[in-house]
Amino acid sequence: MAIQVSVIGSGAEHEERAEAVGRLLAERGATVVTGGLGEVMAAAARGAKSAGGTTIGILPGETRSDANPWLDHVVVTGVGHARNLAVVASGDTVIAVGGRYGTLAEIGFALTLARPVVVLEPGWEVEGALPAATPEEAVEFAIAAARPSS
Amino acid sequence: MAIQVSVIGSGAEHEERAEAVGRLLAERGATVVTGGLGEVMAAAARGAKSAGGTTIGILPGETRSDANPWLDHVVVTGVGHARNLAVVASGDTVIAVGGRYGTLAEIGFALTLARPVVVLEPGWEVEGALPAATPEEAVEFAIAAARPSS
Amino acid sequence: MAIQVSVIGSGAEHEERAEAVGRLLAERGATVVTGGLGEVMAAAARGAKSAGGTTIGILPGETRSDANPWLDHVVVTGVGHARNLAVVASGDTVIAVGGRYGTLAEIGFALTLARPVVVLEPGWEVEGALPAATPEEAVEFAIAAARPSS
Amino acid sequence: MAIQVSVIGSGAEHEERAEAVGRLLAERGATVVTGGLGEVMAAAARGAKSAGGTTIGILPGETRSDANPWLDHVVVTGVGHARNLAVVASGDTVIAVGGRYGTLAEIGFALTLARPVVVLEPGWEVEGALPAATPEEAVEFAIAAARPSS
Repeated sequence: MAIQVSVIGSGAEHEERAEAVGRLLAERGATVVTGGLGEVMAAAARGAKSAGGTTIGILPGETRSDANPWLDHVVVTGVGHARNLAVVASGDTVIAVGGRYGTLAEIGFALTLARPVVVLEPGWEVEGALPAATPEEAVEFAIAAARPSS
Repeated sequence: MAIQVSVIGSGAEHEERAEAVGRLLAERGATVVTGGLGEVMAAAARGAKSAGGTTIGILPGETRSDANPWLDHVVVTGVGHARNLAVVASGDTVIAVGGRYGTLAEIGFALTLARPVVVLEPGWEVEGALPAATPEEAVEFAIAAARPSS
Repeated sequence: MAIQVSVIGSGAEHEERAEAVGRLLAERGATVVTGGLGEVMAAAARGAKSAGGTTIGILPGETRSDANPWLDHVVVTGVGHARNLAVVASGDTVIAVGGRYGTLAEIGFALTLARPVVVLEPGWEVEGALPAATPEEAVEFAIAAARPSS
Repeated sequence: MAIQVSVIGSGAEHEERAEAVGRLLAERGATVVTGGLGEVMAAAARGAKSAGGTTIGILPGETRSDANPWLDHVVVTGVGHARNLAVVASGDTVIAVGGRYGTLAEIGFALTLARPVVVLEPGWEVEGALPAATPEEAVEFAIAAARPSS
C-alpha cells in the first residue's frame, strides 16, 4: 500500500500552493487524501492527478454530488463535520494549507491521534505542528514523517 | 470514476461466496468497498484483487492495524460502528453476504439512503432488499442497479 | 442515575401507542431517550412529560431547531443518521414503535451493542428482539431487561 | 428548556477552576454539558451538582462505564473522538478550561458551528475565542453570549 498523506485546508487564495503540494506528493508516490470538496481540497487533488497520482476524497454528506472532479475514489461518510476525523486519521501524515476553524479541528484531531502535522506557512500556529516555508519543504517533511499508522 | 459496490457481511462460512462476489465485481470493473476487517470483508477484497480489481476498506478504529492485507486504500474513520454508514453510503449499490446485526444496521442505513441492496441468500430478509441466489446473480443485480449517487 | 430507555420508530399512525409508551416509562421512573424529532419521537416525549418524566432528544443536525417541544435536554450531534447509534447506545433498553429503515438500523446497532430490544407489534421482526403486544407489555419487558450498560 | 453550556478541557491542574465554572453555571441556572469523563469534565459536573445543577455527559465509548459519578444524564455515542462535535454542538456556549489537542479540535468545531467560545486563561489562544481571566468572568461571558442555537 502506498503512503497516504492528507491535505487539509480551505481558502481560494491558497489553491495554487495546494495544487503544488498535491503534485509533489504524487511525484513522491504518495496517495493524496482530502475532504473531497472545493478550494484547497480540489486543488490538491487536481495537482496530484496532473502528476498521475491517486486521489481519495472523504465527503461529509450523504451523496457524492459535492465531490470535486479530481477524485479516483470517493468515500461518502454521512457524518458532516465529523468526517474531519476520518480525513486526518486516514493520513500517515497531514499537511495543512490555509484553512479556518474546520482545519483547526482537523489539526487538533491529527495531533490527538499522533499523526504528524505539517503547516504550510502562513497558517495556523499550533504547538506540536511543524511549520514549512514552501510546498517543497512541506512535502519533504510529510514524506519523512510518514509512518504507517499500524 | 469507476462504479463502487459495497460488500457487507460477516461469518467465516460465507467467505467463499464473498470471494466470488469480489472477483466478479472486479471483472466487471467495479471498485469493491468494504469495512476493511476480516471474514466476508477480507474475502471480498481478496477476490477482487485476484482479478486485478481495486479495493477500499473503511475501518472503524483509529489506526490501520486491523486492516486486511487485500486493500489498496484504507480509510480510518475512528467512529466505531458508525463507520457502517460510510461503508454503505460509499457504494452505488450494496451486496450483503451473510452477516449478523452489524449487517442489519448497514442494510437499514443503505435503504434509508436509497442505495439498492442485494442480499445473497441465505441472508437477512428485509422488505426492499433484492434477494439473489448466487454470487453471479448478486453481482448482476448490483451492477444493473448501480447509479452514481449524485 | 435513573434508568434510561430509548424509544425509536416513526410513522404518524404509531403516535398514540408511542405516547402511551412514553407515559408508562415516566410512571416507572425511567428517563425517555429519543432521536428528538417528530412523530413517534415527539409522541414518546410528550407522553413522558404528561406523566412528569424526564426526556432527552439526540438530534442528527447541527442545531436544535428541529427538536420537538417535549424535550428537557437536547444533544446536538451533527452526525446525521450516525446519531442513531447514540440513540440506542444511550438506552439501557430500547423499545421500537413502528418505524422504517432508520429504525431497522437502530435495531441492528442496539443488538450489536447487546442492548435488549423490545418491538411493539406490529413492527420489524428481528431474531433477538422481543415482541410485545401492548404498550404496557413493552414497558414491562423494557424495565425488566434494563441493566445499566456498565 | 434551560440554557446549556458545554465545558471542555483536560488536565488535573485545572480541576479546581473547572469545578468553580460548573458551580457558577449551575447557580445561573445553566445545564452543564461535558464529555463525561475525568479531570476537567468530572470537576465541572461535580461543581454543578454541588450547586444543585443539572449535568449531561456525552461519552465517546459504547457503554457508560467510563462516566464520572456527577452526571444526571449520560449519552453514549460510540463514535470516539467524533463525540467532541456533539459536546460543543450541544452547548449554547462553550467554556474551555485547560485542555490539549482534543480541546483544540472542540474549539475548532465550536467556532465552525458559530458557537461562542470562552477560553479561561491560561489556555489555547484562538482568534475568535474570547479569553476570560477568572471562572466568574468566563461564566459571565458564556451566559451573556448564550443564545439557543435554533
